[in-house]
Amino acid sequence: MEQPTFGVIGGGSWATAIVKMLCENLETVGWYMRSVYAVEHIKREQHNPSYLSSVEFKTEQLKLSTDINEIIAYADILIFAVPSAFIGSELNNVNTSLEHKIIISAIKGIMPESGKLLGDHFNTAYHIPLENIGVIAGPCHAEEVALERLSYLTIACAKEKNAKIVAKHLSSDYIKCTTSDDIIGIEYAATLKNIYAIAAGIAHGLGYGDNFQAVLMSNAIREIKRYVKSAHKMKRDINSSAYLGDLLVTGYSVFSRNRMFGNMIGKGYTVKSAQMEMSMVAEGYYAAKSAKDLNETRKKKAKTPIIDAVHEILYKGKEPKKVFKKLIEQLD
Amino acid sequence: MEQPTFGVIGGGSWATAIVKMLCENLETVGWYMRSVYAVEHIKREQHNPSYLSSVEFKTEQLKLSTDINEIIAYADILIFAVPSAFIGSELNNVNTSLEHKIIISAIKGIMPESGKLLGDHFNTAYHIPLENIGVIAGPCHAEEVALERLSYLTIACAKEKNAKIVAKHLSSDYIKCTTSDDIIGIEYAATLKNIYAIAAGIAHGLGYGDNFQAVLMSNAIREIKRYVKSAHKMKRDINSSAYLGDLLVTGYSVFSRNRMFGNMIGKGYTVKSAQMEMSMVAEGYYAAKSAKDLNETRKKKAKTPIIDAVHEILYKGKEPKKVFKKLIEQLD
Repeated sequence: MEQPTFGVIGGGSWATAIVKMLCENLETVGWYMRSVYAVEHIKREQHNPSYLSSVEFKTEQLKLSTDINEIIAYADILIFAVPSAFIGSELNNVNTSLEHKIIISAIKGIMPESGKLLGDHFNTAYHIPLENIGVIAGPCHAEEVALERLSYLTIACAKEKNAKIVAKHLSSDYIKCTTSDDIIGIEYAATLKNIYAIAAGIAHGLGYGDNFQAVLMSNAIREIKRYVKSAHKMKRDINSSAYLGDLLVTGYSVFSRNRMFGNMIGKGYTVKSAQMEMSMVAEGYYAAKSAKDLNETRKKKAKTPIIDAVHEILYKGKEPKKVFKKLIEQLD
Repeated sequence: MEQPTFGVIGGGSWATAIVKMLCENLETVGWYMRSVYAVEHIKREQHNPSYLSSVEFKTEQLKLSTDINEIIAYADILIFAVPSAFIGSELNNVNTSLEHKIIISAIKGIMPESGKLLGDHFNTAYHIPLENIGVIAGPCHAEEVALERLSYLTIACAKEKNAKIVAKHLSSDYIKCTTSDDIIGIEYAATLKNIYAIAAGIAHGLGYGDNFQAVLMSNAIREIKRYVKSAHKMKRDINSSAYLGDLLVTGYSVFSRNRMFGNMIGKGYTVKSAQMEMSMVAEGYYAAKSAKDLNETRKKKAKTPIIDAVHEILYKGKEPKKVFKKLIEQLD
């Protein structure tokens, strides 16, 4: 693969940021998005109308399409960056072969339909060999990529050569990439962090302060460590940027949708009314259910008091104040 | 020791917060502070004039004194909470025996004169046996204790029984205490975190964003792990609240003196002018020198690129922008 072709699937801020990174290195970048309006707007105005609109594209670099099959046919390497809630319906439209493609997930969540990580889903439902599946992890707010602020990414693939190819094409002055072979651990960590961001939001909404937030994050990373160990035991440093850094950038972000959602719950909104207030469902909402369910199926369940607490609040209608009163006794 | 007596040494915000915690459990708390004015003010107005002035004390609970020897004579357990820069001059006034006292350090720093942690200093200069020396660690902003916001403390002593006695008398509805026997590791971590807060401030001053801050903290905790391992090898979970939580509460605090100091340096102030702008020298300034010097004396030096970078900027007059350009290549 001398010069592989890349296609990005998705029209949101993270997809837009990834297209920007690739444009630093490639003559042409394939880009699928659902919205005809957005594609027309980008062609005319050189920027995405709804996300990271400050990012100017050279449209001659973009192979834009509202047909997912066209971009799949075009690209050797496909980067999926749509919210996990929409990936199922997008994949329903695919009738082009995914054989021989390298599939990279930039989706930080579990597919609600299958309860699976995206990599796992592609492996089982599309028979993509694991060595051709990868994941992109932060810590990375798309908004800072738009501003070209220094950010570090980790690209994980079972086959390191593939991770290196992707890393090479995302790297630039302001993007540093490292590679890893812990695709399962990194994808889980990226998913779980949204649950902890909800927990941080609930705590804030309930009136807990910065001292407690630090304790919560310190317990969260230990919980992630136990969870990914029980999902896939291997040697990993949980304090690497892809795990701890990703948790921190989300858990400390006041702009995180997950944290905002949690904050509303903590302040007394019902789950339904909090969801109605937000234009997009917070990833962590689904993740709390899937992560809890998955943990229950394990022979050796990980101890996850924070996930359990968020799950009780979001899915069992328990009162946040009471649940946290119990939770704080389990933290240290 | 059925009901031990406690004395707090110091008049700043952390000392004031500790006195408040003890007042929840004790009939009388000894409290030494240098300022005659402050003592008079507390007696008259029931609050510290300069720090945490919202905290109301019942003055009949306080045994206040401007004579350090009086409080030392009174208390079985002495909690030192003065900035490390002043501890030397305070100790010069001590002519009361410290024998049989339990000495607890709430000082997050290294004594500039001896280059030693406080516990180490008491052990070598005053022959206090190690089992009677302990340390109180956060994550804990004193300001949140004033607001009675839930906070977790870790009390470390070589002799666990002593840690438990102190923990018992600091605990309340809003203070949860755990104990540890890693006094050296926790005291180092509490000291080093101020250097990373300076680094975070410099990064912010130079224009780095939240993505980089998360990478910096993720690298910082790994650096702390290596440093304390080379200082004192033992089994510890570096992600416990006393290490990681304490790093986060400081490194993410926009009110941290260390972070503010770093921010000024990053924005182009010289070290001298930044220090002149601040009423109190940031602990991390001394810590950067002591920690670096101590590391140099070790047979197996820990790899500490962040401490080295801060040291180069603060003590070698190197340009922050250039030093960080080199530093970012060493992080991942």
